[in-house]
Amino acid sequence: MPRDPSKTRRKLIAAADALFYNQGIRAVGVDAIALNAGVTKRTLYYHFRTKDELIAAYLDGRDQPTLGRYQALIPEAKEPAALKVQRVFEHLSKSCQDRQWRGCSFLRAAAEFANLPGHPTRLIAARHKKRFESWLENILRADGIAGAPDLARQIMILFDGAVAQILIHRDPGYASSAAAAAASLISSKRQKRKSGRSAR
Amino acid sequence: MPRDPSKTRRKLIAAADALFYNQGIRAVGVDAIALNAGVTKRTLYYHFRTKDELIAAYLDGRDQPTLGRYQALIPEAKEPAALKVQRVFEHLSKSCQDRQWRGCSFLRAAAEFANLPGHPTRLIAARHKKRFESWLENILRADGIAGAPDLARQIMILFDGAVAQILIHRDPGYASSAAAAAASLISSKRQKRKSGRSAR
Repeated sequence: MPRDPSKTRRKLIAAADALFYNQGIRAVGVDAIALNAGVTKRTLYYHFRTKDELIAAYLDGRDQPTLGRYQALIPEAKEPAALKVQRVFEHLSKSCQDRQWRGCSFLRAAAEFANLPGHPTRLIAARHKKRFESWLENILRADGIAGAPDLARQIMILFDGAVAQILIHRDPGYASSAAAAAASLISSKRQKRKSGRSAR
Repeated sequence: MPRDPSKTRRKLIAAADALFYNQGIRAVGVDAIALNAGVTKRTLYYHFRTKDELIAAYLDGRDQPTLGRYQALIPEAKEPAALKVQRVFEHLSKSCQDRQWRGCSFLRAAAEFANLPGHPTRLIAARHKKRFESWLENILRADGIAGAPDLARQIMILFDGAVAQILIHRDPGYASSAAAAAASLISSKRQKRKSGRSAR
């Protein structure tokens, strides 16, 4: 039994994170994870009854940090939503140029387990994306933009679409294209609101 | 040796297609594919030297049929590009409600092999997406829309983003959101052109 169980658990999740994110979930066996964590397979199974439990802990462990990285960029300041949304895409454009970047872990997990709607990764991925979308919605709402829920959805679609295209083409230019599209959509909403007002 | 080698080859690709698309590429072994094609593993390896060769044949076999399904919906008629693009998203909205739908095979393959930039699936996926994007560009160009290459990229991003969100949430509503965003982007381009003209 390890002396500090919570430390061992963290080491296992860190090893799983490095391997799953880089190579994919199904491509990596528990043996490799135990080896990289420096523990026996028996110890791994003491902390996680099944590989699925470890997969869930891996993905769940990315939920808040991933959203948090974006939230940290964008303080609650009274800035236009359009500017905040641009920063989201700028961050994507920068981070996707990291040599370790392999796209979105949640989208990739949903893709790997596309045929298993009840798999824990599916629930965690869906929850994460909804949280991201709600956060975008709050940014738009704080700036008084009408139709914030619809627009947040569209920006979420642009964001994941850019991630998908960059993963496929290894071209960060898709982040700028998505940013330009988001800017245009936000500006159209503003235009509509203005013309709506003047028509009254 | 099979009596008709090309027929056996087609049977193997069909078996691979059914299994890879449903379960994922790494989740399926060659044994299962040989079994489903009704041939021995030896026969499988007579037609495909490696699993990677079979994977490439599977994905390549989806390239033209996938694009072709969209092309068939949209004849070369003199219709507004906006209407044609709406049909693309309507088709996505319909097809994603099929019980067998598991998202985009090209995106899922790129996600599974995210760490292997030289893997054959990566090249085939990139080529397929570029062909799809070029086809969208031609639709926009045929309608005299300025900035067709940029707009085609943005519509491509919306399309794959919608596919990703639907895969994650199992909610076809994302196809309608993406369609509305595409319509707004096309209309903004038209507006700009008009105001550009009147300013001259």
